[in-house]
Amino acid sequence: MNNFTNKVYIASKDQAEYASLINNAQLEDLVITQDKSLANIVLADPPLIVNDLPNLPKLEWLQSTFAGVDALVVSGLRQDYELTNVKGIFGQQISEYVVGNTIEYFRHFSTYRQQQLKSQWQPHPYQSLADKSILVLGTGDIGCHVAKVCNALGMKTGGVNRTGIPAKASPFKYTFHIGEFKSAVKDADIIVSTLPSTPDTRGYLNAARLAHADNALLFSVGRGDVLVEEDLIPAIENGNIAHAFLDVFEQEPLPKSSPFWSHDKVSVTPHIAAVSFPHQVFEQFKENYLRWYDGFKLQNRVDFKKGY
Amino acid sequence: MNNFTNKVYIASKDQAEYASLINNAQLEDLVITQDKSLANIVLADPPLIVNDLPNLPKLEWLQSTFAGVDALVVSGLRQDYELTNVKGIFGQQISEYVVGNTIEYFRHFSTYRQQQLKSQWQPHPYQSLADKSILVLGTGDIGCHVAKVCNALGMKTGGVNRTGIPAKASPFKYTFHIGEFKSAVKDADIIVSTLPSTPDTRGYLNAARLAHADNALLFSVGRGDVLVEEDLIPAIENGNIAHAFLDVFEQEPLPKSSPFWSHDKVSVTPHIAAVSFPHQVFEQFKENYLRWYDGFKLQNRVDFKKGY
Repeated sequence: MNNFTNKVYIASKDQAEYASLINNAQLEDLVITQDKSLANIVLADPPLIVNDLPNLPKLEWLQSTFAGVDALVVSGLRQDYELTNVKGIFGQQISEYVVGNTIEYFRHFSTYRQQQLKSQWQPHPYQSLADKSILVLGTGDIGCHVAKVCNALGMKTGGVNRTGIPAKASPFKYTFHIGEFKSAVKDADIIVSTLPSTPDTRGYLNAARLAHADNALLFSVGRGDVLVEEDLIPAIENGNIAHAFLDVFEQEPLPKSSPFWSHDKVSVTPHIAAVSFPHQVFEQFKENYLRWYDGFKLQNRVDFKKGY
Repeated sequence: MNNFTNKVYIASKDQAEYASLINNAQLEDLVITQDKSLANIVLADPPLIVNDLPNLPKLEWLQSTFAGVDALVVSGLRQDYELTNVKGIFGQQISEYVVGNTIEYFRHFSTYRQQQLKSQWQPHPYQSLADKSILVLGTGDIGCHVAKVCNALGMKTGGVNRTGIPAKASPFKYTFHIGEFKSAVKDADIIVSTLPSTPDTRGYLNAARLAHADNALLFSVGRGDVLVEEDLIPAIENGNIAHAFLDVFEQEPLPKSSPFWSHDKVSVTPHIAAVSFPHQVFEQFKENYLRWYDGFKLQNRVDFKKGY
């Protein structure tokens, strides 16, 4: 054991699976350690490692298993190590969540399920998604993936980001500055928040901004604190939001006392719009470890100042 | 009225809407007639005109409002007129139906709806669509549209047609001859029938062919008689089909006595996977009328021999 230079400590709900993936890969000069004091590398779900940050004296690099690293970029926490997150594996799942729920909503699938229980043959008029406008908050790899799938479904796609400048090879038809929300949301049939939790984004979807929406579907699939939760039900009652699909919340699990559970225009899912499949996260850890071992720059490094 | 050369008779459940669209368009030398004996042009839902075919002595051209014209190509019926159908407007809707139901199935949306009723926060493992294989029977404009959307979702797309030759600019990764069903379906996670009803396709999805599927989702969205209905439940019980989404049936409305209504691995919808939106059908009628008026060949002509 002492011959290994690199010792990785794992803290994840998928601990056993990661250990097995790392052991099977036999990466050069890397061993798993259970001893935090020896680890120079950490592979972790951010909420499961944050309290142990002071107990990792040799920490040089932490690979997050999540895209969202907000738990680790809180002010006051150490920033004397390289922090990397995972990218490119959540866009697909978020797209499925958004597109699947949107189709189900506009095509009345749940009505037909109810009718089937009564052996009832009754078609209902509907609108195709082809003429719908979707506004995606956040034009990173997740937002871009959503836009690509929506383009294939003939929808008009708009994106909102911090600069108002389209990303390279942007799939969005329109790109808006984060300050232009009012005009961006005007014609949106669907609003999707993929925003990370940063000082700029927390509380961004508040009563004043939601008031500019007109009968739109709202998807909250980035971080829960981007939406001011107490402002949502009034926005539904005012007709700004037709239905909200909430997968992330200020507090998770969502408390039993939340009015969202029983609201018929709110769909609650338990933070499953996108999850970290260990085999995909491991591929990114492995790629980064090989870079680390060869002395190259790591991929998907988090800027502690920006928070993503 | 007598000054008009072209007189169109309308027979559709959307009669009033078509009449209004035609009147508002003020097409040169065209008038609507209620008198079948005067009409040289017919715009009709096929099942609503078939019994009147003998009562249309001046019929020269019939524009179907449906893609499926099987009601009109039955042997024994007259074929002394030009028959055109509508194309290119159903692919979008069929894609929405297939993709929406597939996502809902693999992502456990209905489980989460049930859990929400109990304020229950309980994630479930799932698989992304990205690694799934979809086999589409029929590589016409509907099948191609489905393939394009599935490609955007990262799925592997295969198509089956009468020749085994890929369509021009085919979006399918693989194209199979209709005789190669066994090898085509081997790895399919999802099977979609978009086939028209013709002597070659009726009963195509029978016990022998379904037996080659392995735990696949089955979508029947072309014509109902492509599937041998009595063979489906045994195929589900044998594990060939995991769940069937049926939108079309041998007899519509589906009789109350059908076992499909109450089967928990069958979803029944009342022929709504794709409907003719009158404004879209009218655009194709108008384009064809202008060609007719100018003496050009009509678009989307049906070959009475092929039946599509």
